[in-house]
Amino acid sequence: MPTNRQQHLDNRPEGEAVAGNFKLVTAETPALEDHQVLVRHHYLSLDPYMRGRMNDSKSYAQPQPLGQVMQGGTVGEVVESRNPKYAVGDKVVGFGGWQEYSVVDGNVVGALRKVDTTHVPLSHYLGAVGMPGVTAWYGLVKIIAPKAGETVVVTAASGAVGSAFAALAKARGCRVVGIAGGADKCRYATEELGFDACIDYKQHPDVKSMSQALKEACPDGIDGYFENVGGYIFDAVLLRTNAFARVALCGMIAGYDGAPLPLANPALILINRLKIEGFIVSEHMEFWPEALKELGGLVASGKLRPRESVAEGIAAAPEAFLGLLKGRNFGKQLVKLV
Amino acid sequence: MPTNRQQHLDNRPEGEAVAGNFKLVTAETPALEDHQVLVRHHYLSLDPYMRGRMNDSKSYAQPQPLGQVMQGGTVGEVVESRNPKYAVGDKVVGFGGWQEYSVVDGNVVGALRKVDTTHVPLSHYLGAVGMPGVTAWYGLVKIIAPKAGETVVVTAASGAVGSAFAALAKARGCRVVGIAGGADKCRYATEELGFDACIDYKQHPDVKSMSQALKEACPDGIDGYFENVGGYIFDAVLLRTNAFARVALCGMIAGYDGAPLPLANPALILINRLKIEGFIVSEHMEFWPEALKELGGLVASGKLRPRESVAEGIAAAPEAFLGLLKGRNFGKQLVKLV
Repeated sequence: MPTNRQQHLDNRPEGEAVAGNFKLVTAETPALEDHQVLVRHHYLSLDPYMRGRMNDSKSYAQPQPLGQVMQGGTVGEVVESRNPKYAVGDKVVGFGGWQEYSVVDGNVVGALRKVDTTHVPLSHYLGAVGMPGVTAWYGLVKIIAPKAGETVVVTAASGAVGSAFAALAKARGCRVVGIAGGADKCRYATEELGFDACIDYKQHPDVKSMSQALKEACPDGIDGYFENVGGYIFDAVLLRTNAFARVALCGMIAGYDGAPLPLANPALILINRLKIEGFIVSEHMEFWPEALKELGGLVASGKLRPRESVAEGIAAAPEAFLGLLKGRNFGKQLVKLV
Repeated sequence: MPTNRQQHLDNRPEGEAVAGNFKLVTAETPALEDHQVLVRHHYLSLDPYMRGRMNDSKSYAQPQPLGQVMQGGTVGEVVESRNPKYAVGDKVVGFGGWQEYSVVDGNVVGALRKVDTTHVPLSHYLGAVGMPGVTAWYGLVKIIAPKAGETVVVTAASGAVGSAFAALAKARGCRVVGIAGGADKCRYATEELGFDACIDYKQHPDVKSMSQALKEACPDGIDGYFENVGGYIFDAVLLRTNAFARVALCGMIAGYDGAPLPLANPALILINRLKIEGFIVSEHMEFWPEALKELGGLVASGKLRPRESVAEGIAAAPEAFLGLLKGRNFGKQLVKLV
């Protein structure tokens, strides 16, 4: 059996996550039992939610266990199979974690999904046509539910969720305004991703300045907001919401390190009669087929051209992940293993 | 024509509202024109939302104009009519403001509503079978939408909204927990209003203490919350919410004086996948008939026995209103004029 290098969570962060929280470990892959398949991972997905699980605190998911492989989405190829549903060479999406190989019981519902790479590159099944894309879809379609002509705003605009959000919102006739860190990301958002405008938060580091920038970018106010970040940007957006605006809340990256992250003026929820809804996309599996179909179509037709930041090799995963938390990635952050 | 004493808003509060913001003025009632009726007010309604309108700031409603009669709900009797739809002696609910008489165009839709006082005392049409009752109904039925066996919590438990909320929630098989200020109000809530438990916030003046009290009063967690107050109580409730809990947000009385009122940990909206929705009951008139029918039935059958705090005479309105903002009322606050 092949040698399998893995990244374990060695200890929990105190405040900011650091490289020393992870440990590179070499293991053997066990012999397969009936129904199992051996998947060689081509790409690991790195996602902001992983930071939350590194803490040992109450949340919607169990904490990432110490001394075990970091959990996460993977795409790869079946290299050995004792399950008639999977043949060697099949391309599959799974949840194999930060390691080079995984052994999966192919009979567990949802554990693996075969994908077609004719029109969609394999790596995109971790991004635009995967969990981040469906996250954007659910927040936009099921919570914000925009009408044509409405203005919707998304943070982390150039990332995996933000880029899918833009394509989906443009397809529904919305004005789409992004928020991203840096002129490069903003230029990419407007020139490549279809955003009508993009605000560089590094140029607007406080509520007042961000609120003014939003006023200019959203002359008709804000009807829908997809919240990824939290903090002063959330406060500034709420100041610009129209009556009956909807907020889909799917991340609070600014608060994962334990810094206090209050909402300055919740009275705006009443004043503007807002609806704010938190969601976890894995709890809404019934919508994935519909969402993936639309997202796959947008990618295949070139209307959604997601960008990727690719780190090379399992050893590079921790630094790539820490960079993602600081916004150093540009588009979907992946680790390429093959 | 009779002399008509009125309370005007003379100047806007700077911070806390004070008696000097109001001015007692004597006016003549004008002669009626076609379609108009003259209503003699029996009771004025005093409600927390009026404090918000005293500020000259953006909100869902226009600010109360300076130098004009304080706006507000009224019940009374038609004493003169030039409209065939209204006869002298009819009992009517309207929005006549802080004055002894109002002249109303009876053809304006919604300006006046005739009510039957056979089974429901006239004053209750300003409380349990009026705007506060419908407010409780909409928040409970349309936003919280509880299942039997779920736990719901309401602040200002002994007030007009809270007491209606309890009766409506008990009718749906919920565990209902109130929060109120003082042992008297809490005893009344559990002994008279049907609350399963009531927490005295004066005994629990910080998040930690309130959160512990909620844990004891809500052993199965909180599935629905009707927010009237804001501040640390909101923070404490969010800490005890179950996954997929719903929050109906209809008041932020703790913030009307301009004190900052942040929400400490909005990440809980994501962690517990909460839905928080602000609403103004006057924007949902289509549900009023259904709500009033249920509320009238609860009062007529004795299942809802709302208490009233009654101030006497138009001159007493400002002090009664300021007392309401400080929680000095016990049940629905009214001013009796006849």
